[in-house]
Amino acid sequence: MTYGQCQATLARASLARLSCAVDNQPYIVPIHVDFADGCLYGYSTIGQKINWMRVNPLVCLEIEEITGRRQWSTLVIFGQYEELPDTPENAYPRSLAERLFQRRPIWWEPASVPLAGHPRRSPILFRILINRMSGRQATPDPPHAPHIPSSSSNEARPHGLVHALRRLVRRSARRP
Amino acid sequence: MTYGQCQATLARASLARLSCAVDNQPYIVPIHVDFADGCLYGYSTIGQKINWMRVNPLVCLEIEEITGRRQWSTLVIFGQYEELPDTPENAYPRSLAERLFQRRPIWWEPASVPLAGHPRRSPILFRILINRMSGRQATPDPPHAPHIPSSSSNEARPHGLVHALRRLVRRSARRP
Repeated sequence: MTYGQCQATLARASLARLSCAVDNQPYIVPIHVDFADGCLYGYSTIGQKINWMRVNPLVCLEIEEITGRRQWSTLVIFGQYEELPDTPENAYPRSLAERLFQRRPIWWEPASVPLAGHPRRSPILFRILINRMSGRQATPDPPHAPHIPSSSSNEARPHGLVHALRRLVRRSARRP
Repeated sequence: MTYGQCQATLARASLARLSCAVDNQPYIVPIHVDFADGCLYGYSTIGQKINWMRVNPLVCLEIEEITGRRQWSTLVIFGQYEELPDTPENAYPRSLAERLFQRRPIWWEPASVPLAGHPRRSPILFRILINRMSGRQATPDPPHAPHIPSSSSNEARPHGLVHALRRLVRRSARRP
């Protein structure tokens, strides 16, 4: 995907998967994010992902757009967690975040839904500073697309892989 | 979600997101997996995720089932990567993997699609040994459901969160 296609995907993004890691143990959660000013804004109640991102702010996000069996794109973003506590210097990013969150009905917030029997907790606002990203898609790039790696649109290729896989498995099954 | 609900979700799973980490930098890719014998089986060409899982086999997978705005479940699995090279002792798991992969048309394999201009690479078979998992869902658990944490089905709660968020943002905006 081109840089412009990656940016357009970010601008449309609502649902993403966020991965963080502590002691090299990764953890994934689905999360609602909004893109503005080169960052992804989100919020969450306190819990495992917030605790882990406070220990290690390096994160990875993945955004998918699937419109058909042969039409999909996936964007992988490497970034850094930055919490936005309620301090005077965060007034602007916090009000920006609120405007972003109000654009859409928030209907799917598994990361924010309290567990049964647990007390309600205050939301924590944060943003992800994007360090780098790369996108892949199943539809062909336009002619003269720039150099950002892009997956091939050749539908036959995955089947070639399956054939190679079958050959490998048959060969191993034939062994004594 | 109950243990049985988690197992049933695994049995239906096809598309998952896999996260691995090296030097505490997480990475996510969507991947096709199949569940059998307590493991998740997958394959991929060599690339970043295989290289990283060889360095650090600790992984996390996330599986989503979204059937409506207010009906979703998400399963988070912590596990360990185990490669299945073509050796006699791997004949059984490799043939099991092949049978699993043949059950479904493989149509969405962003992690396996070669980049344009890159040579075709042989697939690598692997499985993820499940260490622990937890599931959340938006629909209510049946009565007398066991102790595995389950999200509340109370639809009003996310809106409560939004109100709390708005209060916080307004308070910060009012500061000098």
